[in-house]
Amino acid sequence: MKKKLMKALVYHGPGNKSWEEKEKPVIQHPSDAIVRITKTTICGTDLHILKGDVPEVVDGRTLGHEGVGVIEETGGFVTRFKKGDHVLISCITSCGICEYCRKGIYSHCENGGWILGHLIDGTQAEYVRIPYADTSLYKIPDNSDEEALVMLSDILPTGYECGVLNGKIEPGSTVAIIGAGPIGLAALLTAQFYAPSEIIMIDPDDNRLSVAKKMGATKTINNHVEMATEKVLSFTQNKGVDTVIEAVGIPETFELCQSLVVAGGVIANVGVHGKSVNLHLEQLWSKNITITTRLVDTSSTPMLMKTVQSGKLNSKQLITHRFKLFEIIRAYECFGQAAKEKSLKVILSND
Amino acid sequence: MKKKLMKALVYHGPGNKSWEEKEKPVIQHPSDAIVRITKTTICGTDLHILKGDVPEVVDGRTLGHEGVGVIEETGGFVTRFKKGDHVLISCITSCGICEYCRKGIYSHCENGGWILGHLIDGTQAEYVRIPYADTSLYKIPDNSDEEALVMLSDILPTGYECGVLNGKIEPGSTVAIIGAGPIGLAALLTAQFYAPSEIIMIDPDDNRLSVAKKMGATKTINNHVEMATEKVLSFTQNKGVDTVIEAVGIPETFELCQSLVVAGGVIANVGVHGKSVNLHLEQLWSKNITITTRLVDTSSTPMLMKTVQSGKLNSKQLITHRFKLFEIIRAYECFGQAAKEKSLKVILSND
Amino acid sequence: MKKKLMKALVYHGPGNKSWEEKEKPVIQHPSDAIVRITKTTICGTDLHILKGDVPEVVDGRTLGHEGVGVIEETGGFVTRFKKGDHVLISCITSCGICEYCRKGIYSHCENGGWILGHLIDGTQAEYVRIPYADTSLYKIPDNSDEEALVMLSDILPTGYECGVLNGKIEPGSTVAIIGAGPIGLAALLTAQFYAPSEIIMIDPDDNRLSVAKKMGATKTINNHVEMATEKVLSFTQNKGVDTVIEAVGIPETFELCQSLVVAGGVIANVGVHGKSVNLHLEQLWSKNITITTRLVDTSSTPMLMKTVQSGKLNSKQLITHRFKLFEIIRAYECFGQAAKEKSLKVILSND
Amino acid sequence: MKKKLMKALVYHGPGNKSWEEKEKPVIQHPSDAIVRITKTTICGTDLHILKGDVPEVVDGRTLGHEGVGVIEETGGFVTRFKKGDHVLISCITSCGICEYCRKGIYSHCENGGWILGHLIDGTQAEYVRIPYADTSLYKIPDNSDEEALVMLSDILPTGYECGVLNGKIEPGSTVAIIGAGPIGLAALLTAQFYAPSEIIMIDPDDNRLSVAKKMGATKTINNHVEMATEKVLSFTQNKGVDTVIEAVGIPETFELCQSLVVAGGVIANVGVHGKSVNLHLEQLWSKNITITTRLVDTSSTPMLMKTVQSGKLNSKQLITHRFKLFEIIRAYECFGQAAKEKSLKVILSND
Repeated sequence: MKKKLMKALVYHGPGNKSWEEKEKPVIQHPSDAIVRITKTTICGTDLHILKGDVPEVVDGRTLGHEGVGVIEETGGFVTRFKKGDHVLISCITSCGICEYCRKGIYSHCENGGWILGHLIDGTQAEYVRIPYADTSLYKIPDNSDEEALVMLSDILPTGYECGVLNGKIEPGSTVAIIGAGPIGLAALLTAQFYAPSEIIMIDPDDNRLSVAKKMGATKTINNHVEMATEKVLSFTQNKGVDTVIEAVGIPETFELCQSLVVAGGVIANVGVHGKSVNLHLEQLWSKNITITTRLVDTSSTPMLMKTVQSGKLNSKQLITHRFKLFEIIRAYECFGQAAKEKSLKVILSND
Repeated sequence: MKKKLMKALVYHGPGNKSWEEKEKPVIQHPSDAIVRITKTTICGTDLHILKGDVPEVVDGRTLGHEGVGVIEETGGFVTRFKKGDHVLISCITSCGICEYCRKGIYSHCENGGWILGHLIDGTQAEYVRIPYADTSLYKIPDNSDEEALVMLSDILPTGYECGVLNGKIEPGSTVAIIGAGPIGLAALLTAQFYAPSEIIMIDPDDNRLSVAKKMGATKTINNHVEMATEKVLSFTQNKGVDTVIEAVGIPETFELCQSLVVAGGVIANVGVHGKSVNLHLEQLWSKNITITTRLVDTSSTPMLMKTVQSGKLNSKQLITHRFKLFEIIRAYECFGQAAKEKSLKVILSND
Repeated sequence: MKKKLMKALVYHGPGNKSWEEKEKPVIQHPSDAIVRITKTTICGTDLHILKGDVPEVVDGRTLGHEGVGVIEETGGFVTRFKKGDHVLISCITSCGICEYCRKGIYSHCENGGWILGHLIDGTQAEYVRIPYADTSLYKIPDNSDEEALVMLSDILPTGYECGVLNGKIEPGSTVAIIGAGPIGLAALLTAQFYAPSEIIMIDPDDNRLSVAKKMGATKTINNHVEMATEKVLSFTQNKGVDTVIEAVGIPETFELCQSLVVAGGVIANVGVHGKSVNLHLEQLWSKNITITTRLVDTSSTPMLMKTVQSGKLNSKQLITHRFKLFEIIRAYECFGQAAKEKSLKVILSND
Repeated sequence: MKKKLMKALVYHGPGNKSWEEKEKPVIQHPSDAIVRITKTTICGTDLHILKGDVPEVVDGRTLGHEGVGVIEETGGFVTRFKKGDHVLISCITSCGICEYCRKGIYSHCENGGWILGHLIDGTQAEYVRIPYADTSLYKIPDNSDEEALVMLSDILPTGYECGVLNGKIEPGSTVAIIGAGPIGLAALLTAQFYAPSEIIMIDPDDNRLSVAKKMGATKTINNHVEMATEKVLSFTQNKGVDTVIEAVGIPETFELCQSLVVAGGVIANVGVHGKSVNLHLEQLWSKNITITTRLVDTSSTPMLMKTVQSGKLNSKQLITHRFKLFEIIRAYECFGQAAKEKSLKVILSND
């Protein structure tokens, strides 16, 4: 039987990618579903892969772990979805039965976790195979705003779970978010679920800070031209903030977090770090603080869908550029030159 | 020495009250403060007292447990306040040192609790004595909006602590509030701190329902003309809501709560009940629900002040009428005829 | 093909049961497993069914929802078990993929819940079919103590989840447990995980109270001959206890709970109620209490297995009598005449 | 008036201390109490001070922050204690009214915190002045075991709050404690409140490990002769433990913590660190872990007293040596040479 072909964005080693023909995925296990992609997007992690920072990604791998689409085919074990269903794809694949999944830590699923566009072919393609479809896809109403929902594949649960939930943001509390890229902004949007009294956004890019202001930041600090610690202390009667969210991933910003947190507060790390950092236990041992790390579990996805559908969360604000799926190489350029292009999230449509 | 006089609203047994001269309060214990009232208000509980429902209130008692004012004098143990400080009076007096206060259950303080306008003279007067001032008053900035803050003496912490916090409202969750009086509306306003996807307000008064709509209710049900249970089920795919807040205090409304709550949900009672109610354990024993009761602790007052000051909470929306303090008898009439006068909270100013 | 036969305890309407031959179960859905029972037991719920109190149970149904056994056969979707594996059967069947299962509320699983010996054939038989085997069975080591583990099918998770966890027992806290039957004793055993300072056991049967004393109760009250409320108050400086666990299921005992709970405390209902009860909101509205109900989710089963295996929980103490499986009619008599036989849990062995 | 004298252990700069006469303390503020010490002890922190590591401690300071005694005199604001009352002294002084105290973070009390034997004279003396007596002392029954209770001034709340509570130990969970000195052993004793299935104790001193075994450790590792990481992994199916408690305070042991914690687990720091440490965010960023620090708040003291009084906690096990108070110089030698003397906590009695 002749294999069917489709187009996909394929990784060919550090610095190399191409939009090319490859075989359309097929059901490999009865819990799989094949999804025709209607909308997808590009993540900062995809840029890391292209730099060669994620060596598990092999030559020939289709990239991408975000998307919305339509079920094309389901394996025999799939009970919650059928051909034609409109679905949101979670960046985390969850088997639903291992010890970690039963605890809600889907990111450490023994059979899944982050595998799309990483250990198996991903979503920047016309079709994608999703293992454990029953517990890794979410049905969406047919009249849904697909663009708003693509933001829920990864970036919004990441900002919410790793930043806001771990950061224990509460009504009236004070928050600083370091990094106003898409993830930091996702934390900013979802932090507002809890009515904090201050959300201070810190970033060296004035454009991103002005975006943050529009999205609800109460204060902004350009930490290339201002002393961030001094300003935050001046905003908080010299105490520091209740929650600091690290959304960059370098030693300098983690250092800054430690100088901003109040006694009894939380540092919630979201950034992907490539190096170890210096932890000032000689000062912090007696400060009653909590530091958290987390790979997104996407356990909050059903809740986030409700907040989008009820209008509490305007996730589309994060989208700055739109392309056709076949224009993905140009879309990568736009996304990769974020400061110049003033890009946040880009949408790729497969119409 | 001649005793100084002031004016106060004095209870003289069921049905009787008068605005009359009485002695100005003096420091009785070194932890006391004397506060000159600048703004006060009337609570539904004051109406209960006047009906004779609260027999501990004796003839001669000055009513009222809410207010904002200025420190006139402090006892020798008071360390946080001095003459001239602008303060918010909490309806709950907390000694700060008993077992309950150390746990944050100020409402059951062994030396305080709800005593103002109940066991000792209250705030509907030109001056009031506040015991345990250090832990029962809150300093407010001089330029504060006093009207907004009077709402934080009782009604907003009550709606928030007894309804919203106990009700475990979360982003995306569904809420029904039974009773759109001032307390139900206070729960409605503070429920929005947590971005629930639905807040369904249930009341027999169309005016109050239209106020609720303006204050953020997503749906309203007039339970005199509509079947509340059927409508709530129709809004929630026949499941019921995650949180039901009871803000009336009669057996019928508590019965309604039990028919609205989803498996795994919460019924948070706020209403003051005069009779026992029927609890359907023959249905609910297996439904994994939680029922809570609470007299407000006012432990959330510092947080609520931050949300008012940062503009997250517009507490003044609850105020419908304004009077001079000496017009308090008229103010009681207005407040007592709530449906006719379309009154919610009334402000009494002592300028 | 000739159908294979086995022996089973079959319900034939109120008051009627028999140990008879019926068809051995077969795989009906690829997520099923067939388990050969090695040990099972009888639950108070089985007696309720036999009285006709559970009308969903139809004539011909094999009873029983507890047991340990060996996998005989697995359907094609089962990934965690294979023929010959030694397993603990959970009384709750969990599909693992519905909204409730994803939240850990397995008792309200849309596809399972309590179905064994209720809506489908149960475990008081030589073989049983277990749907959703991957998420409804637990692998046990081959050298496990089967008797200890049968107690984890239902009774220990019930006492623990509905009584101890919902009751928020903490180190140093005070607990009263009403009802010293198997469920109340299961709550007693697992309450000790949290080092409460007092566990007061209340029951009208002196034998059960002396068993409770041996299992760790610090005080016992025979509420047929003593005034339970007065005694509990005398043990607690007239405050009442932090947690009351209701393990009987009648209005009188729920009434007693309300008189024993301290301000700020919890009433955790475990008992199966057949009638509504009177809830004294006229007294409790201001007492800051929590009332919980729950059908066991068995989400604590993996944890309980660890406590049995590490010797922290001696679940075998609950077993008073042992029978061969074919002696089950006699075992029911023994279990049914608990006071006379001094029986708690009975073990049925299929050797 | 002639000043009264007493004996005290006085610090005279790094390396110098003496048991000498100095003025007996007097009430300085009406919230003070003067306590006659009956039992006190020595803390590892006292050794740090004597090394010169705590520069805020000035020449002339009486050391010590632990003790039990009898009220000699109370200031005019003290309401909960009177002359002759038997009391436990908390190492943390709490004013009860500042923002931190109202949140239960007494260690960061704006008017107190750790001041005894640090910023004001301490308890290694015949008499001590305790500020904010109402909220910094705990009444004990006259027939109490004073030795058992001295252990509750600092060491047991420290092990419990900073290690066990922050470490979120749960029934069935696995725990590793690094450091089997008095603090590590206090964590070991109180960890057992929660029935973990494994408590692995790691220390280079075989004597301390054998003590740990007697106190309830399920496994011990001598990390001078064994590979701690490999052994812990071998005990836990290569996963690591749910909770790691750091009770040493050096970079090497914090490094070890990071290699022992399971995905989703907690590192609870108790140790006092003098240097910053290396935090491997390049590995941990995606591991869903929590790291906590804490100076003891002693908010658990009332609870710990209940566990001692009910026999759930045998705190006296930590005491290895007993001296008269005037023998304190010898007691310091014994405590300072812990390995040689096999000393844990020493008791000093002022009879």
